[in-house]
Amino acid sequence: MTTEPEQHPVNGLDDVVHQRVRLGILTVAHQARRVEFGFLRTALGLTAGNLSQHLAVLEKAGLIQVEKGYEGKRARTWLSLTPAGGRALQDEVTQLKRLIQQIEQGSSAPES
Amino acid sequence: MTTEPEQHPVNGLDDVVHQRVRLGILTVAHQARRVEFGFLRTALGLTAGNLSQHLAVLEKAGLIQVEKGYEGKRARTWLSLTPAGGRALQDEVTQLKRLIQQIEQGSSAPES
Repeated sequence: MTTEPEQHPVNGLDDVVHQRVRLGILTVAHQARRVEFGFLRTALGLTAGNLSQHLAVLEKAGLIQVEKGYEGKRARTWLSLTPAGGRALQDEVTQLKRLIQQIEQGSSAPES
Repeated sequence: MTTEPEQHPVNGLDDVVHQRVRLGILTVAHQARRVEFGFLRTALGLTAGNLSQHLAVLEKAGLIQVEKGYEGKRARTWLSLTPAGGRALQDEVTQLKRLIQQIEQGSSAPES
């Protein structure tokens, strides 16, 4: 095998960002700049509790910013990407592209 | 928002395949056809116990096939992708490409 252990693309992925639901949250936030909790819950097919747990992980890591307020009389929660969140998502994309490239090269690497 | 909830790319990702370590296992197995346990453990920087747990998940899902044998007097474990594993990895790549495309389109989607 010619692959250097530390260079395998999945070793460069951050579990905080890569986890399926959180990757979805970051992607939607990246696209919309500011996302309402209920919209996100529907878009990703989650329960409110499950979404809240993932948002807490992302907020603690400094990747999103949560804002509470009102829309008329209804309490609303919005979230947006922080600059660190934008960079983390970009890093994920970079590693995923390397990974896809390895997969699509198939079995061309010599086996030893 | 123009995004249809059920069409968000992360909703099409399978957690069994998408999880970082398992995605690494499937990728290495795809490239090498037949991978030795110790090689994989080093390549992905895992403990033997952690790797075994992830292999059990993949084997139970029918995505890899585990084979035990000897190399000289040393017990060895090899694994290889099943046809279903190859298809699952291809599906993951397809969804990841859609996701990357959405991310790289950035905030061009209208916000409402």
